[in-house]
Amino acid sequence: MPAERGQGRAERGRPTISEVAAEAGVGRATAGRTLGGYGYVSPELRERVLAAAEKLGYRANALARSMSTGVTHTLGVIVADIGNPFFAGVVRGICDTSRARGFDTIVLSTYENLEEEIAATNVLIDKRVDGVIIASAAVDKREVAHIEAAMDRGIPVVLVDRAISALDLDAVVIDNRDAAREAVETLIEAGHRRIGFVWGPPAPQAPATRRELLAEASRNLWTDGERLRGYLDALDDARIPFDPELVMVGPKVEERATQEVARMLALPDRITALFCTETDAVTGALRALRAAGLSYPRDVALIGFDDSAWAAVMEPPLTMIEQPVHQLGEKAAQMLLDTLDGAEPRREMHTLRSRMIRRSSVAPLPT
Amino acid sequence: MPAERGQGRAERGRPTISEVAAEAGVGRATAGRTLGGYGYVSPELRERVLAAAEKLGYRANALARSMSTGVTHTLGVIVADIGNPFFAGVVRGICDTSRARGFDTIVLSTYENLEEEIAATNVLIDKRVDGVIIASAAVDKREVAHIEAAMDRGIPVVLVDRAISALDLDAVVIDNRDAAREAVETLIEAGHRRIGFVWGPPAPQAPATRRELLAEASRNLWTDGERLRGYLDALDDARIPFDPELVMVGPKVEERATQEVARMLALPDRITALFCTETDAVTGALRALRAAGLSYPRDVALIGFDDSAWAAVMEPPLTMIEQPVHQLGEKAAQMLLDTLDGAEPRREMHTLRSRMIRRSSVAPLPT
Repeated sequence: MPAERGQGRAERGRPTISEVAAEAGVGRATAGRTLGGYGYVSPELRERVLAAAEKLGYRANALARSMSTGVTHTLGVIVADIGNPFFAGVVRGICDTSRARGFDTIVLSTYENLEEEIAATNVLIDKRVDGVIIASAAVDKREVAHIEAAMDRGIPVVLVDRAISALDLDAVVIDNRDAAREAVETLIEAGHRRIGFVWGPPAPQAPATRRELLAEASRNLWTDGERLRGYLDALDDARIPFDPELVMVGPKVEERATQEVARMLALPDRITALFCTETDAVTGALRALRAAGLSYPRDVALIGFDDSAWAAVMEPPLTMIEQPVHQLGEKAAQMLLDTLDGAEPRREMHTLRSRMIRRSSVAPLPT
Repeated sequence: MPAERGQGRAERGRPTISEVAAEAGVGRATAGRTLGGYGYVSPELRERVLAAAEKLGYRANALARSMSTGVTHTLGVIVADIGNPFFAGVVRGICDTSRARGFDTIVLSTYENLEEEIAATNVLIDKRVDGVIIASAAVDKREVAHIEAAMDRGIPVVLVDRAISALDLDAVVIDNRDAAREAVETLIEAGHRRIGFVWGPPAPQAPATRRELLAEASRNLWTDGERLRGYLDALDDARIPFDPELVMVGPKVEERATQEVARMLALPDRITALFCTETDAVTGALRALRAAGLSYPRDVALIGFDDSAWAAVMEPPLTMIEQPVHQLGEKAAQMLLDTLDGAEPRREMHTLRSRMIRRSSVAPLPT
C-alpha cells in the first residue's frame, strides 16, 4: 500500500528544518545540527534555533507522531547471523512482505550471543518499532526476559526459525526433524549404516550415551536438537544401533567439522556416509574427504543443509536440503503485520516444509 | 567501552513503566501499551496512564535523552543486498568495531533499488541514528539528495564499497581496478587471449565499441565499472584487441551469466578463459561449462570474485579474489566513530588491497 507509506512519511503540516532555519535566521545545516543534537553549534545559534522550533511547533516529530497514531511503520528483525545465507534469505522475505504493506524493516545481528540479543531488543524498543521478528539464541525460561519486556510494552513478537518452548508465541519454523529423518533414511536406503552426524551439540566432550547427548542438545539450539532427533529417528526405524563416536561435538565451525570428519574416517569401522546440518559443516566435511584422499559419492555418501548455487555446481553436484527461506520470512512478516492490523495472535507454531534436492552425492554402499 | 554503553541504556533517574503503572493504578502491560502507543487501551485507562506519566516526567525518553546528550549510540548501515556474503562480511566488521566502542548497529537492505535506499535513509533519520554507513546504488549527482539530507541534519555519512564521484565524502573501497587487472594479467600470462568478462554493465544490447561500453559502465555501478577498466587495462598492456563479443551484458543474474558464457563458448574463435566479477557470475559460468561438456582448467581457465569456503572445496579448487570484507567494515566504522568523537572528516577515499588466492583453475593454454 504505497499510499499509506507515503502518508506515513509526508508529515503534512509539520514545519520543515528549512522553515525553522529561516525563522531563526540561520543556515539549514545549523538548524539540522541543533535539532538533531549532533555536531557543534554555538550556544547563541543553538538558542535561536530552539526558540524558532518551539514557535513553529517543530517538535511534533516522528516520536510524537507515533504516539498519536500508534504506528511508526517499522518492523525490527533480530537474527543470529546475517552472514549466514539462510538468514539473509529470511530477511529478504520479511523485507519484501513488509514493504508491500507499507512497512520498513531494520535488522540487527547478534552473532549467536545472548547479550547482543538483549541489547538488540532494547535498541528496537528504543527505536519504537511496531513489531519484532526474532531468531533467538534463548533456550530456556531464564533467557527470555528481554522478549517479554518487548511484549510488555505492547510490541508483538513473532519467532522465526527457532521455537522457544518457554514462550507461547507465534513462530514460523521448518520441519527440521522430518527433513533430517528423510535425509538419513535416504542414506540408509542406499545401504549405509555407519553415518556421521555433523554437527551435534557444542559439548566439550562426546556424550557417552544417547540420553546424555539428548540432554546436551536440549540445552542448546532448538533447530540443532530437532535435526539430531531426526537422525536418531531414522537410525531407530532401521534398527541401527546409535554410536556416539559418529556424532561431532565441539564448536560449530568449519575447522572443527574437518577435524571431526577426519576422526570418523579414521575409525576402524569408518563412516561411509555423512549428514551435515549446516553449510559450513558440508564444506568442512568436504575438506576432510579431500585430505584423506577420498571422494564422494564413491567413498562416502553425503547429504547437507542448506542448498545453494555452489552445491549445484560442485562436481558431482550435492544432494541438499533446501529450506524455504523466503517463505519463512514472508510468513513471519504476515503473522506480525496481521497482529498489527488487529488480528488476535494465534500463538501457534507454523511449520513449513523443506525439500530434499536429489543430485549426485549419494551412491549405494558397495557390498 | 562497556561502561559507556551501560550508561547509555541505564536511563538512571528516569521513571520506569512499572512506576508509571503503579502511579496510575493499572497493570504494567496497560501502561506499556499506552506509552508505546500500541494495542488497545480503553480511553479512561489511557488518560490515567498519560496523567501518571506526565506527573512522573516519563516522557524524558530515549529521544529527549538523545536531544540533551546528542548521542543515541546507534549507527545505521544501508547495504545493497544483505544476501550477498560480501555485504554480510562488511556488516560484521562494522558491528564488531562499533560494539567495541559502545555503539549498536542497525542494518537496512535496499536490494539495489534507489527508491528503497531513499526510504532507508529516511528511516535512519527518523530513528535518530548518530551516523550512517552506506553502500549506495546512486551513480550521479541527481541521485544523492537523500544522502545530502542526512548530512544536512548533522548526521555524518561514510561510503563503503562504492564511491560516488558527485559527493565529497569519506569512503572505504577496495582496489577493484588493480584486482581485475591482476586477474586478467594472470590469464594472459598463461597464454590466454580470448578472455570473457562476466559480468559487464546491464545494457540491453552489447555496445559495439569500447567507448560505448565505458559510457554504459559510467552510468552504472562504480565497482563494476572499475573492474571493467581493470580488464581493459590488462588487454591494452598485452596489446590484445578489445572484442565486444567477449563482454556479458544484460541483467546481472546467474541465469544470464550461464547464457552469455554459453554464447561465448559457441563463438567460432571461442573463449579459453573467463574473468567473473561476482559469485553468481562464477556459478553461472560453471553451469555453462558443464552444459557444454567442458571442464576447467583444461578447457577454460577461470578466476572469480569473491573467495568463499565453497570455492576452496571445488574440485579443482578455484583461483579467486578475496576482498578484505571485515576490514572494509572495520575501517568504515572507525572513520564514522572518529568523526562522531569530534575528528574532522578527511573526505578521502581509503582504498584497501584485495588478494588473489591462487588455486587450480588456471592452466596454460595448450599450444
